[in-house]
Amino acid sequence: MPIDPRFFFTAEASLLREMATSYGLSEADPRVGLVRNFGSFDTAIPGDICFFEGRCRDWPAAGTKASLCLVRENENWETASSSSIVPVTNPRKVFFDLTAKLVSEERHSDRAPAIHPEADVAPSAVIENGSAIGEGASIGPFSYIGPGVQIGKGTRVGSHVSIRFALIGDGAKLLAGARIGEDGFGLIEGPGHMTDLPHYGRVILQDSVTIGANTSVDRGLLGDTIIGEHTKIDNQCHIGHNTVVGRNVIMVAYAGISGSVKIGDNVQLGGRVGIADHIEIGDGAQLAAGSGLTRSVPAGELWGGYPARPIKNWHRELVWTSKQVRRKRSKA
Amino acid sequence: MPIDPRFFFTAEASLLREMATSYGLSEADPRVGLVRNFGSFDTAIPGDICFFEGRCRDWPAAGTKASLCLVRENENWETASSSSIVPVTNPRKVFFDLTAKLVSEERHSDRAPAIHPEADVAPSAVIENGSAIGEGASIGPFSYIGPGVQIGKGTRVGSHVSIRFALIGDGAKLLAGARIGEDGFGLIEGPGHMTDLPHYGRVILQDSVTIGANTSVDRGLLGDTIIGEHTKIDNQCHIGHNTVVGRNVIMVAYAGISGSVKIGDNVQLGGRVGIADHIEIGDGAQLAAGSGLTRSVPAGELWGGYPARPIKNWHRELVWTSKQVRRKRSKA
Amino acid sequence: MPIDPRFFFTAEASLLREMATSYGLSEADPRVGLVRNFGSFDTAIPGDICFFEGRCRDWPAAGTKASLCLVRENENWETASSSSIVPVTNPRKVFFDLTAKLVSEERHSDRAPAIHPEADVAPSAVIENGSAIGEGASIGPFSYIGPGVQIGKGTRVGSHVSIRFALIGDGAKLLAGARIGEDGFGLIEGPGHMTDLPHYGRVILQDSVTIGANTSVDRGLLGDTIIGEHTKIDNQCHIGHNTVVGRNVIMVAYAGISGSVKIGDNVQLGGRVGIADHIEIGDGAQLAAGSGLTRSVPAGELWGGYPARPIKNWHRELVWTSKQVRRKRSKA
Repeated sequence: MPIDPRFFFTAEASLLREMATSYGLSEADPRVGLVRNFGSFDTAIPGDICFFEGRCRDWPAAGTKASLCLVRENENWETASSSSIVPVTNPRKVFFDLTAKLVSEERHSDRAPAIHPEADVAPSAVIENGSAIGEGASIGPFSYIGPGVQIGKGTRVGSHVSIRFALIGDGAKLLAGARIGEDGFGLIEGPGHMTDLPHYGRVILQDSVTIGANTSVDRGLLGDTIIGEHTKIDNQCHIGHNTVVGRNVIMVAYAGISGSVKIGDNVQLGGRVGIADHIEIGDGAQLAAGSGLTRSVPAGELWGGYPARPIKNWHRELVWTSKQVRRKRSKA
Repeated sequence: MPIDPRFFFTAEASLLREMATSYGLSEADPRVGLVRNFGSFDTAIPGDICFFEGRCRDWPAAGTKASLCLVRENENWETASSSSIVPVTNPRKVFFDLTAKLVSEERHSDRAPAIHPEADVAPSAVIENGSAIGEGASIGPFSYIGPGVQIGKGTRVGSHVSIRFALIGDGAKLLAGARIGEDGFGLIEGPGHMTDLPHYGRVILQDSVTIGANTSVDRGLLGDTIIGEHTKIDNQCHIGHNTVVGRNVIMVAYAGISGSVKIGDNVQLGGRVGIADHIEIGDGAQLAAGSGLTRSVPAGELWGGYPARPIKNWHRELVWTSKQVRRKRSKA
Repeated sequence: MPIDPRFFFTAEASLLREMATSYGLSEADPRVGLVRNFGSFDTAIPGDICFFEGRCRDWPAAGTKASLCLVRENENWETASSSSIVPVTNPRKVFFDLTAKLVSEERHSDRAPAIHPEADVAPSAVIENGSAIGEGASIGPFSYIGPGVQIGKGTRVGSHVSIRFALIGDGAKLLAGARIGEDGFGLIEGPGHMTDLPHYGRVILQDSVTIGANTSVDRGLLGDTIIGEHTKIDNQCHIGHNTVVGRNVIMVAYAGISGSVKIGDNVQLGGRVGIADHIEIGDGAQLAAGSGLTRSVPAGELWGGYPARPIKNWHRELVWTSKQVRRKRSKA
């Protein structure tokens, strides 16, 4: 998926092509002629520039649909047999140096917000241009709806909520202080210190999602952060960038999901569950309150503990240790 | 306690009675003639409809004062010897289907807010009708005081605070971003997915309570969420619906209390303590930082660990395990 | 450092001197003649009143530069050989009783905020008098900049942010709902219940600091809470009063740092790390997600676990316990 023009302004294609030639590509190169936008490796379409940080042997069989893909130098990329490959010193850095020059937040849409006459918007709310509020939706006091944001029918947004770079379905509920679409926590090592990566993705909240008070859902780096239908998220939770949560999931307070996590349908997370980045939780899995996940969990399993493991193992270890210590003391 | 008319609008008694007859009760039934409001099993008064989810053998000796109590079918309710019993297929569902039709948020009180002349309200704050702000109280910038909310003398409300469905005592302090009275996290299983339960209860903050920055206190489902006098709650905490916290309690940052928990007086919770729902913590108990409570704690005891146990047991187990591992390594 | 007059109004020196004589000091005492302000033991300058809670044997060799230092009675203070010592029954209580009478928040500066013409302030933001917003800085919708707050060049403040009693450097980024400079969680035991201590310190965010959404950084009790250059803090974190964080530190979501903690440069904290008060974390140390620190960590070490210990020890204990339990079960 290319960067969404509802939320970001991308430089003209001619300027992108000009930049592309700075990697040693000929202007006559037919790939350069195609360039129109930026995208992520997985979701790019023809016309996008993307990047790939892995080694050549990690190149996925499916490849990318991007027209240009920045990759590491000093690898034998012929085996990847992709026509898009452009080797550079540091793909991530080159990519984001480029976007920093050519992409900016689309703040100044001329189109007034499309607020349905049957929507109920508090007088103190701020609704930016280019956004749309559906029939029967309500927006609470001091809430901020950023440029281009779409809010579906009957969705209720409480007070002090901020929504940016996001598409919200019908019948959703966002309680006070929810933070939707803030920058993700993505860093790049600079000269002697870390620097924040700009985030060009979005948040998608599907129909009937509930987001608790003071919960945050960060937008993706390039792709989207997605919460599936009927998923219910309690107060004080946090969902990192590019995480995809399935349908009908329950997350109790303080669930903390890192970036690029995949959570299946009907998963249940107890309070204070933490999940490390890039972990996958299968459909219907259940995680006990306080679990800290550092490994993926197969569908239907029940895990717990810190670090988390199948809950039977965790319970056996707790019981065994406790018994040993009692026995030792009764002997003494 | 019936649903508080300061916060919710309940349909006329005639309409409630009409609904009541849909359970197969005769209009002439003297219990139907009494119906005026909804309430929770424990705190209902005559005239209320309530529900009871337990089996017949779980029916408490004290019963309920409600005029009508929806209970499960296919039980021998004669032993409960209560005149209020009305068997239905799914008491919780029938109850909330009924309230969804007959109760609505009381948004449009005509009474202008009663703001004491000696109160200090920031120009950017929004104070809804039907509320009252006491002498010497202050309300910070961008704070929202919902319809019917009462705020006592000298209470200080910081910036960006939201208070709904709540009664706040004298001399309380609410720091920036506190969320008082949002919907609790209560779900009911619907056809194929979970649905949020509407919450008709309140939050009561007694005198001299402190609520930290970005802390949330959810309102009760039917009854109240109550925080006792002089209780001090740090930043980023969360108190679930219907929880009752005693007096002079200390909760350090990220304390996460589930629903329907009972915490005694003078209890101390270290940082990041989590408490499962329906747990009781006795007076003067102390919980070490990071504890995860799944069992009730007797008065005066000191517990810690995940899951939490008496702190001496936890420490012994930690020391014993560490010693075993060192011994094994020194032998190898 | 005395109390900063940009944020607090301190009574005239004559009134302070009058109060000082209430401890049995003669008006002619040359120390009394010097008194002008309050300060903390470590950072006081001549003219300040401070307090010291320790016993005589705990008195640091470096002493204090304050002119008057309230100390415990019934100790032989001659060995401390400081000219500033004034014994009282309860030094902390006497000190804060005094400040409560003589110090107040400086709310009514006459100086209009100094907003650079190249700064971008949302129309709905509130900027108090006495503050300054630098060139190229931006302040988002519904954000509140308190009296006297200084914000550097190019610093980006998102929506719904509150900043009070704080000095913010250049190029910093504060995401939506961040709470900077709220009262710390400091209590003093009163007659039968706890009371909040007033906080007279500040928050210093150095250049290029990032603060995540809904993260809170409390101001110091008397000294400052400081976050060093290029330090990146994720969403939902909490930094307690008087904590000092070094440069280029990374804190993942829900890091919870208690009061008076010292964190060195280049430290990395995984998600949900908790640190008890007065702990020190050496330069370059790394703490695994979910660790609970109750002891100081030497520079460069990698710790994890609850309670936290060197990560090798923790992992060995996990592996050993799991093996024992499996062995026992295979024998059975």
